[in-house]
Amino acid sequence: MKQLINVPETVVADALRGMAAAHPELTVDVENRLVVRGDAPVRDKVALVSGGGSGHEPLHGGFVGHGMLDAACAGEVFTSPVPDQMVRAAAAVDSGAGVLFVVKNYTGDVLNFEMAAELAEDEGVTVAKVLVEDDVAVTDSTFTAGRRGTGATLFVEKIAGAAAQEGAPLERVEAIARQVAGSARSFGVALDACTTPAKGSPTFDLPSGELELGIGIHGEPGRERRAMMTSGEIADFAVDAVLEDLRPDGPVLALVNGMGGTPLLELYGFGAEVHRVLGERGVPVTRTLVGNYVTSLDMAGASVTLCRADEELLRLWDAPVRTPGLRWGV
Amino acid sequence: MKQLINVPETVVADALRGMAAAHPELTVDVENRLVVRGDAPVRDKVALVSGGGSGHEPLHGGFVGHGMLDAACAGEVFTSPVPDQMVRAAAAVDSGAGVLFVVKNYTGDVLNFEMAAELAEDEGVTVAKVLVEDDVAVTDSTFTAGRRGTGATLFVEKIAGAAAQEGAPLERVEAIARQVAGSARSFGVALDACTTPAKGSPTFDLPSGELELGIGIHGEPGRERRAMMTSGEIADFAVDAVLEDLRPDGPVLALVNGMGGTPLLELYGFGAEVHRVLGERGVPVTRTLVGNYVTSLDMAGASVTLCRADEELLRLWDAPVRTPGLRWGV
Repeated sequence: MKQLINVPETVVADALRGMAAAHPELTVDVENRLVVRGDAPVRDKVALVSGGGSGHEPLHGGFVGHGMLDAACAGEVFTSPVPDQMVRAAAAVDSGAGVLFVVKNYTGDVLNFEMAAELAEDEGVTVAKVLVEDDVAVTDSTFTAGRRGTGATLFVEKIAGAAAQEGAPLERVEAIARQVAGSARSFGVALDACTTPAKGSPTFDLPSGELELGIGIHGEPGRERRAMMTSGEIADFAVDAVLEDLRPDGPVLALVNGMGGTPLLELYGFGAEVHRVLGERGVPVTRTLVGNYVTSLDMAGASVTLCRADEELLRLWDAPVRTPGLRWGV
Repeated sequence: MKQLINVPETVVADALRGMAAAHPELTVDVENRLVVRGDAPVRDKVALVSGGGSGHEPLHGGFVGHGMLDAACAGEVFTSPVPDQMVRAAAAVDSGAGVLFVVKNYTGDVLNFEMAAELAEDEGVTVAKVLVEDDVAVTDSTFTAGRRGTGATLFVEKIAGAAAQEGAPLERVEAIARQVAGSARSFGVALDACTTPAKGSPTFDLPSGELELGIGIHGEPGRERRAMMTSGEIADFAVDAVLEDLRPDGPVLALVNGMGGTPLLELYGFGAEVHRVLGERGVPVTRTLVGNYVTSLDMAGASVTLCRADEELLRLWDAPVRTPGLRWGV
């Protein structure tokens, strides 16, 4: 797969320049690789800061704006940002009401956000943290002790972001973020590997007649490889893997997420199969989001994230959001 | 490239089932392959109907909703819908104020929408048509006499859709659609071919060190193949090709469009280069949209569409829109 880039070394900075050009409502600090709400700090509002390796766009920079994140820190492709970025982000968005760090469970991110939290606290910023570890495919993997953080990040950022936007205090925003992180589970599959700018060729080898069940968003190994399956068979496998862990007793929100290289036409067809399986299992779906939200560059494949949602979470999900990647109600 | 499908024969129907599941605000007729505003016909409103071959999602079904299309007809992948679908769509959305057909310039689409217009007129629906032929790459190509209709379709549907939503009469909506179609030009490049479900392998052969300049949205040949270029070099070539034809004397709207398989990270980087070139050429850009909007399944590559926009077109561009693929202000 060829790439639309200048040189691998400037891919992240080039993308941030593009975000700055396309989104004048955001403040993009290309040098420090931060995307910040243009109106930050928002008076008396708890601020949400997230970030991680690049290559998962629109996550996280594309989720900065009204009702979601206040700032996002971009690392190199598939590499954690550094504590200095996170401290700068916290300082830029803290109104005095405190900051919540939303951290995907990868060792580098966890360590760096932890260090950043200490440094920010030293500077007088009150920091809380929530860890997202929703991928049921495997425990312990490349880059990760425990479960990987994937699609649930979108639910945490959207729903906790809505609570913060409404003026909830830090303890409440943190509690909601933890509730969502504990209520959402994911499972992903890869049909073809992704190509990182630095490598310029596929990051792993997936034979032409096979798929990988339980893939991570950096192409980390999943549960098993099998002969290629139909969309319906994949939906059966992925939804059942999530339900086995999540055991919802009420309605769920569903994210049918593309890994980046799978066409929307196919994603919608996969979404139909996900709905079929959930119907067969007696799980009501109140909202469904289909698209490329938590991606792995140009990887072909998809993931399913389900989030148990009580009335309050549903209300916060439906609350207005205005970001490059997710937008409704405003 | 492997595909997330059941069987090639059901790809379009499966995707429409998925749209129905994810978007309860739309009426999806899977049998007749129509996506219709759930509140259609909207009283006293001119209705916009478009459609075309599938594989370009979110175009057109993803642009159905408040402020844009009233209905979209989905053909098989890369194949025109049939007149019967268009007549049904017109009947479903006509409030008595008339219907505008938005037609991309491909021979099948042109003939079928023409026949549908006659049939709909016979049934008492007043129909106007606008032809989109914005691709400056080549004249006459596979499937097309004259220029191909590509990214400008989004501008026509959005801006004329806003005029219709405001209550403009058919003559005015048609005039605005023609103005936009005459004010927007595109140029696209492919880095890798797409894979259709029916074929299951790349639709054309692009050697590993080359790209195709001037590609069509079905992989039709462009102007030339060259050794792989940087993002900046591609932006120079594409923007200059558009400007040479468009010759804007004021601000433009810019669409930096992904062909489907190129990651958003790369598209934003390309967008930065497009802005750089426009800056160097002294062309002010008032709005920029970056993302996968008029796609070619999983083709890797991008296109640039520029649209000359006076104050009225800019106002209509900014007007509220609420569709699966484009959404702001409501």
